[in-house]
Amino acid sequence: MTEVPHVVAVLGRGVVDPDEPVVSADDLGLTRGDGCFDSLRVFSDESGRATAVDLEEHLDRLDRSAGAMDIDNPSHARWRELVEEALAAWSTPGEAVLKLVLTRGREWSGAGPTALATIAHRGPALPAGAPRPITAVTLTKGHPSDAFADAPWLLGGVKTLAYAVNVAAVREARRRGADDVIFTTTDGYALDGPTSGLLVARGGALLSTPTGATGILESVTVEAIFGAARADGVETRYELIAIADLHTADALWLVSSGRGPALVTVLDGRALRADPDLVTRIAGYADF
Amino acid sequence: MTEVPHVVAVLGRGVVDPDEPVVSADDLGLTRGDGCFDSLRVFSDESGRATAVDLEEHLDRLDRSAGAMDIDNPSHARWRELVEEALAAWSTPGEAVLKLVLTRGREWSGAGPTALATIAHRGPALPAGAPRPITAVTLTKGHPSDAFADAPWLLGGVKTLAYAVNVAAVREARRRGADDVIFTTTDGYALDGPTSGLLVARGGALLSTPTGATGILESVTVEAIFGAARADGVETRYELIAIADLHTADALWLVSSGRGPALVTVLDGRALRADPDLVTRIAGYADF
Repeated sequence: MTEVPHVVAVLGRGVVDPDEPVVSADDLGLTRGDGCFDSLRVFSDESGRATAVDLEEHLDRLDRSAGAMDIDNPSHARWRELVEEALAAWSTPGEAVLKLVLTRGREWSGAGPTALATIAHRGPALPAGAPRPITAVTLTKGHPSDAFADAPWLLGGVKTLAYAVNVAAVREARRRGADDVIFTTTDGYALDGPTSGLLVARGGALLSTPTGATGILESVTVEAIFGAARADGVETRYELIAIADLHTADALWLVSSGRGPALVTVLDGRALRADPDLVTRIAGYADF
Repeated sequence: MTEVPHVVAVLGRGVVDPDEPVVSADDLGLTRGDGCFDSLRVFSDESGRATAVDLEEHLDRLDRSAGAMDIDNPSHARWRELVEEALAAWSTPGEAVLKLVLTRGREWSGAGPTALATIAHRGPALPAGAPRPITAVTLTKGHPSDAFADAPWLLGGVKTLAYAVNVAAVREARRRGADDVIFTTTDGYALDGPTSGLLVARGGALLSTPTGATGILESVTVEAIFGAARADGVETRYELIAIADLHTADALWLVSSGRGPALVTVLDGRALRADPDLVTRIAGYADF
């Protein structure tokens, strides 16, 4: 039995017992990480009504991931229906994460892709504007900043199920006494986190790493913050950020759908400064 | 229903219907590729007796993969017992592949690692010494040849379930009209194939790419061929092989447990030479 609340819904079957096996031993998502996923925030108000935040944007990103892997993605309508079924079975107040998982399906039968939606509880409702401070370390990703240019088979920018290195990097951070990781390139630039985008405030502007040749994932949350910031008259830029410049930034965040903007207060053991006004503004831009 | 014969055995349960789901939606092997595997050759003689080739060597390699990922691997005795159950249920003559899959287990419960053994039919028994010619293309892996030095979180040399790039690279090869891939580094060296080791004959010696800083997997089959070659008085060396030198080799193979030594006859559209005596000798060394 699971100890905290969870919901599992399978395309073609609907909501099932979360402890029930749903994937065969030959599913290519299991045996090769040959599939993609997306995850997004769910919060439930006091009446128990659950809302999936930015579902369309995440379904769009899942489309792009599936397209890059030549996997036939179910329509948005079918995904929305599956998500509605999962949300209808979800009544736990507070914060949760909705994950959409798509695999190429079974190797031994032609049944087509496997599609699942899961909801897992994260914790109680967060106070608005809470800074959520974290510590981080920089770890090399082992490649230069242009490694993914003209090499689509490297699946740059694709949110595949093959996340073992991301998991191992977080384990390495914990071993070093830190919460999270900022990946770096062999030519001296910052990339992103294992499960988050990078956001840097410098000289009145907001910066984030460009997608494309760097291979990083586009971040729906960075996009949302950039949009709100521009509407507020703040300049935003996607540009390569030197590792050394992380330490002199006005503030630094790792941002994700589930956690929102998490302020990095210590990097590689050195305290970072963070303008408190900026921290409040960014939380507002992120609607967290 | 599956169309060709398969066997699935689950640790703690034994042999199950191969069409039956065996993995939960929160299994970290599925959701993050957070697990490892090994695969090896099975062949069955005319009486139907199935043999798993080099099982101990593959269990040793699985131990090393699990150790690098901090996953608690069942003992060799438990794996051997599971494999025996799977082999006992296997009676299809010819060549098959046995896969051992180990995941970190379920995220939502503390049930521990998931361990599976599967057997899948490959085809009829192969004639001894058959050259199995293939065509290949070189594709960049996007990193330099020393990318994995001092970076254990990149999981170099670890046979993780996160194989999506390997699968995508083979798809790219097929798009280019070739069978397989030789990965290359940004500094101009050959690595290995997506599911095979590289073997090069040059000047009377046999060469293969070193493990370690290159991040490539150790190949049980390259090891076996090297051992037999040395016993036959042939020099063997692990050293970096320049991409340009692939085209001037005396012969070139991609070798794996399942397929044995596959002779590369065309690379990037250019025919390669291959000394026929060498080809026969290598097939003998590989016991294929």
